[in-house]
Amino acid sequence: MNEEKTALGQKILRLKREKRLRWGEVAEAIGHSAVFACAACLGQMSLTAEAAEKAGALFGLGAEEVALLAEPPYRGSLPTVAPTDPVIYRFHELVQVYGTTWKALIEEEFGDGIMSAIDFEMTLDRQPDPKGDRVRITMSGKFLPYRRY
Amino acid sequence: MNEEKTALGQKILRLKREKRLRWGEVAEAIGHSAVFACAACLGQMSLTAEAAEKAGALFGLGAEEVALLAEPPYRGSLPTVAPTDPVIYRFHELVQVYGTTWKALIEEEFGDGIMSAIDFEMTLDRQPDPKGDRVRITMSGKFLPYRRY
Amino acid sequence: MNEEKTALGQKILRLKREKRLRWGEVAEAIGHSAVFACAACLGQMSLTAEAAEKAGALFGLGAEEVALLAEPPYRGSLPTVAPTDPVIYRFHELVQVYGTTWKALIEEEFGDGIMSAIDFEMTLDRQPDPKGDRVRITMSGKFLPYRRY
Amino acid sequence: MNEEKTALGQKILRLKREKRLRWGEVAEAIGHSAVFACAACLGQMSLTAEAAEKAGALFGLGAEEVALLAEPPYRGSLPTVAPTDPVIYRFHELVQVYGTTWKALIEEEFGDGIMSAIDFEMTLDRQPDPKGDRVRITMSGKFLPYRRY
Amino acid sequence: MNEEKTALGQKILRLKREKRLRWGEVAEAIGHSAVFACAACLGQMSLTAEAAEKAGALFGLGAEEVALLAEPPYRGSLPTVAPTDPVIYRFHELVQVYGTTWKALIEEEFGDGIMSAIDFEMTLDRQPDPKGDRVRITMSGKFLPYRRY
Amino acid sequence: MNEEKTALGQKILRLKREKRLRWGEVAEAIGHSAVFACAACLGQMSLTAEAAEKAGALFGLGAEEVALLAEPPYRGSLPTVAPTDPVIYRFHELVQVYGTTWKALIEEEFGDGIMSAIDFEMTLDRQPDPKGDRVRITMSGKFLPYRRY
Amino acid sequence: MNEEKTALGQKILRLKREKRLRWGEVAEAIGHSAVFACAACLGQMSLTAEAAEKAGALFGLGAEEVALLAEPPYRGSLPTVAPTDPVIYRFHELVQVYGTTWKALIEEEFGDGIMSAIDFEMTLDRQPDPKGDRVRITMSGKFLPYRRY
Amino acid sequence: MNEEKTALGQKILRLKREKRLRWGEVAEAIGHSAVFACAACLGQMSLTAEAAEKAGALFGLGAEEVALLAEPPYRGSLPTVAPTDPVIYRFHELVQVYGTTWKALIEEEFGDGIMSAIDFEMTLDRQPDPKGDRVRITMSGKFLPYRRY
Amino acid sequence: MNEEKTALGQKILRLKREKRLRWGEVAEAIGHSAVFACAACLGQMSLTAEAAEKAGALFGLGAEEVALLAEPPYRGSLPTVAPTDPVIYRFHELVQVYGTTWKALIEEEFGDGIMSAIDFEMTLDRQPDPKGDRVRITMSGKFLPYRRY
Amino acid sequence: MNEEKTALGQKILRLKREKRLRWGEVAEAIGHSAVFACAACLGQMSLTAEAAEKAGALFGLGAEEVALLAEPPYRGSLPTVAPTDPVIYRFHELVQVYGTTWKALIEEEFGDGIMSAIDFEMTLDRQPDPKGDRVRITMSGKFLPYRRY
Repeated sequence: MNEEKTALGQKILRLKREKRLRWGEVAEAIGHSAVFACAACLGQMSLTAEAAEKAGALFGLGAEEVALLAEPPYRGSLPTVAPTDPVIYRFHELVQVYGTTWKALIEEEFGDGIMSAIDFEMTLDRQPDPKGDRVRITMSGKFLPYRRY
Repeated sequence: MNEEKTALGQKILRLKREKRLRWGEVAEAIGHSAVFACAACLGQMSLTAEAAEKAGALFGLGAEEVALLAEPPYRGSLPTVAPTDPVIYRFHELVQVYGTTWKALIEEEFGDGIMSAIDFEMTLDRQPDPKGDRVRITMSGKFLPYRRY
Repeated sequence: MNEEKTALGQKILRLKREKRLRWGEVAEAIGHSAVFACAACLGQMSLTAEAAEKAGALFGLGAEEVALLAEPPYRGSLPTVAPTDPVIYRFHELVQVYGTTWKALIEEEFGDGIMSAIDFEMTLDRQPDPKGDRVRITMSGKFLPYRRY
Repeated sequence: MNEEKTALGQKILRLKREKRLRWGEVAEAIGHSAVFACAACLGQMSLTAEAAEKAGALFGLGAEEVALLAEPPYRGSLPTVAPTDPVIYRFHELVQVYGTTWKALIEEEFGDGIMSAIDFEMTLDRQPDPKGDRVRITMSGKFLPYRRY
Repeated sequence: MNEEKTALGQKILRLKREKRLRWGEVAEAIGHSAVFACAACLGQMSLTAEAAEKAGALFGLGAEEVALLAEPPYRGSLPTVAPTDPVIYRFHELVQVYGTTWKALIEEEFGDGIMSAIDFEMTLDRQPDPKGDRVRITMSGKFLPYRRY
Repeated sequence: MNEEKTALGQKILRLKREKRLRWGEVAEAIGHSAVFACAACLGQMSLTAEAAEKAGALFGLGAEEVALLAEPPYRGSLPTVAPTDPVIYRFHELVQVYGTTWKALIEEEFGDGIMSAIDFEMTLDRQPDPKGDRVRITMSGKFLPYRRY
Repeated sequence: MNEEKTALGQKILRLKREKRLRWGEVAEAIGHSAVFACAACLGQMSLTAEAAEKAGALFGLGAEEVALLAEPPYRGSLPTVAPTDPVIYRFHELVQVYGTTWKALIEEEFGDGIMSAIDFEMTLDRQPDPKGDRVRITMSGKFLPYRRY
Repeated sequence: MNEEKTALGQKILRLKREKRLRWGEVAEAIGHSAVFACAACLGQMSLTAEAAEKAGALFGLGAEEVALLAEPPYRGSLPTVAPTDPVIYRFHELVQVYGTTWKALIEEEFGDGIMSAIDFEMTLDRQPDPKGDRVRITMSGKFLPYRRY
Repeated sequence: MNEEKTALGQKILRLKREKRLRWGEVAEAIGHSAVFACAACLGQMSLTAEAAEKAGALFGLGAEEVALLAEPPYRGSLPTVAPTDPVIYRFHELVQVYGTTWKALIEEEFGDGIMSAIDFEMTLDRQPDPKGDRVRITMSGKFLPYRRY
Repeated sequence: MNEEKTALGQKILRLKREKRLRWGEVAEAIGHSAVFACAACLGQMSLTAEAAEKAGALFGLGAEEVALLAEPPYRGSLPTVAPTDPVIYRFHELVQVYGTTWKALIEEEFGDGIMSAIDFEMTLDRQPDPKGDRVRITMSGKFLPYRRY
């Protein structure tokens, strides 16, 4: 249900490769962080009209494509519930292994409620390490307590 | 296949509540971080023999229970592939929404490979915020490049 | 993973039947709305310690049962993804039929974001109608816009 | 099995955007509520021949497209049983969490039977709130008792 | 979620066998048709308090079992979505083969709507035939048109 | 695997609409009951060569299309095991709710065996009722006892 | 839903092992073929009252167990749709590989219809072969043509 | 993954119909049994180069199509795990009902091992019967004992 | 369906831990390789009567347990099709990633056929490596060509 | 999500057949082992820019196709979780049967951790055997211990 946005994402990936751009440069051009810019270009987030214009200018997109970048997506485009690609599967594995831990720690610290996946932001960077560099991901989501009514 | 370790986890949760302990205190007592200590007590990680002894002393466990804490678990005990509990589902949602973003960013920065979920560590803490406190999670996993042979 | 809370819910249903109580009366006794009180007694919401005490007094529960009412549940206890019971299936059908409509209307009115299911409340009542009385359900959830970062 | 109606819905979404129409205006033009008009345009409800004519006039559709709007759809076009899009998933979550509550409250108030999803209507509006506006949804469905025969 | 009613159904099946009763006799004793009486005894329909009393008298059930017969069930207790037992599978096969036919014929004759499975009744009898007797099932459900609002 | 027959069914539906034919008239023209004629036109039953010729004459089909009507189909073309369309779902619900009842009644009356879904026929008609007309469906299938060998 | 018959089957397997009986001897004792006798003892077929008595005498079963052997089973007790045990999986594989071949050959030879799995019998024996003995299975099922009505 | 071979199979089915050939005649022309010839033409077995040439001559296929017949297929092209077509479903039903019987009989007669589905052959023929002709299928597969090492 | 053998496997794991035995020692005692001995003790392979006796002597098992070790198992006891435990999942991942490679290489080298998983053996050992020791697994299965008949 | 790489793999398979190349020759030309070269050509591994150039020269590919060979794939392209093709299924069966054995042996020898499927290599060759040649597969993956933190 998100075929158009996904196809545009594939096109942007090709253009980005041709123009030898990095996500950090894309992010700077459109005024967002690298994670958000990448997610929006791949069709999982929506840009504001202005940011979409900037992305269009950067990649040489048409007016309809610019408008598409500003549309809210039908989110969640992995082809299977448990992803088969090893990069993405490892995150699914973390949910399987740490799911109950996250729940226990959040409930101890904050009470009955959740970490928002909407009022949420994330960074991903390289952490140099003599035994092999590491991927560091930092997530921050607003705590939302269950409303008792 | 992990019923014994899961049942022990439930028992530890009850004991922890009675003793009014926090995961930070449990972690200090057994010599690990709060995330790891919580995951091990809930039956998703294994403790060394010494750490298991310390946990046993803290909670008043029997010898067989101490030995069980040191056993490698059959990991992954959520009852459904897509978890129904909202706390845990939000992380599943992140995999659905950000899966292709993580893949694109890791491959740009590191090349063809994955973030390890084994040589991996994580912290979870409270980030004060006037608009409502936030949950901050920091993950760090070794980058593992695909071997070309 | 919620067996204890679910079993307690079954016990409360039996007690409520014996005592000929209605959910409205339960709600009044514990200081919440009927929908919330019913959900909490059935093991899908957590009560505050005080409300749990009141529920325990009303139904004659033991201390451990009262404590259980105050525990956050592992939510989502239907036995199948698509419920087989016709009462509950009709709501699943509404999601199937109106899912894209809700998305279109919320996005038109509010922009890219969701209706919270956490900061959320609901009422259910009888709407008299000469052609057959109607069930009226009113839901109210905070709009949460996607954070652009 | 509903591809034609779904594709027409995508076209109408594009036309509506170009013409800067709101669902309330569409609804007024074709003589129905906004929820029903939106669901019908997206291909999940059927219009009467007259309403379909009005919708065709509003959007500049061809005769075959007008006829298609009046056809009963094959309802239920979400690509997965548990929707991945966060807007729609939150409603699925409500079914998982409140399913047994709805059943308990309906049976207490009305006896053994269901809320109809056919003789059913719904409104969705904005509920201003200083702590953040809220989405309000009101559903009304005829109670249908099980026939004992 | 219907274990108690299902277990009672198994007990009634054993009692019926011992007492050499037929469903027609059970039906007469409790004042309903054979199909409804059988469905209620097997835990898929609820009896009125009076009918439950009569069933209790017929089978020699205790007060709690009589009350259980009058409870609304969590309906739908087949262990798999597509039933494996050949008797029941053949009906599932009819849905697969005739599903679109039922839809086409009902919509031609009645318009956009459904046959109710709630305001519904059914008989099952033997149709003598020299080439081998036949099972005849007659279903009758109220037509419910979609409400346009 | 039945795409050609399904597509022909869609074409016939359009032609039937244009020619303002009813299934009863189609049935009369090709010499079968309305249910069978409809199922065959929708691609779930095969016609004899003669009946296919008559259908081809009625709808103005080509020789290859007439041949296709006479081919045995790959039966069962609903897109999901549990159908999402409410018209068809209600029949699936009947299987879930009445499955064990059918089994109990057939086994009491006939012994260990099944109702054939092959040596089978069905009618569907309108049953006028002051409280709202009803859909009446009568099925008749040969009883097939299990062979003991 | 067939737990009692399955459990009895496990008991009979143990008794057969202790008594060093072969299925051919069991079959002779109860007056059926080996395949049928084995299927009935394992709880997937029903015996006549007399054959059940003979089986009871052979294995030393109680009256209730004898009655259970004569009950129609809820058939189909494999724990997964695609069996994991290699002996049984190979037959599932034959369905996957030869399914369309069986359909093509039966339809060429007999027309539109099926091979009955009810009016059906089977033998299984050893076929000596110098390159390694072979398992030979012969199935015979009545052809049932689709009824055109 | 077998789309080309499957499409060629559909083409051969059409050609066979036009040429009024029977599978027995096809089999004779290419030098194999009817079952094997049919399975190979439908894209589930591979022919030797010579047999493929003969099939190409019989049906008037091009060189690329002949080469395709000689390619090993990606086997198993039914669209669902449990087939919906009644002809093929009946075989799936046999696996569900007789699976444990096959396992018990093979293990009694041969020990721990399987019937090969690779070193395997099969015939299908008509067995005249005054009560209605029967489909007879004979399978023969090499017994393969588990290697103990 | 393999509960007894699986439970015995859990018991043997506990005994092995208490007796501080390694799989190599178990293997030597019962006269098989370590992989086979481990698989048989965990309930996925059957031992000969003599080997089962030796295993019984080693672990101090009762006569019924010794007999159970010699029974053919219902193989395949992982709780999910795609295993959640990371150790086992990595092998599942290899099937997803290398499945088509294995097929291409086996068919090039051997023709149309399979590697047997029955006439099969395997070793697992430690491969010292300065950059971190490696797990080495060697599999050897008989090639079985498809029989053309 | 890997359609382009998969389609290129199909093209390379055709070219390889036309040029009568073997995977060993392809491997030599591009400077990798046969298993890795085959996996990369089929679209499940990525080549370095140089190796991709060599592969392009060998097969006569265009610049865009060469670039595609160097892109990281979305891994895991089998159409079903449990593969239906018998060659690949046998490996899936090994996971089902030997999964717990691998886990037990790796944990005994190495402790709590996994065999990497990333820092991993594999060979596949023919093992001559008078009773029928065998397929030999040797896997070697780095052991990765769980980090305790």
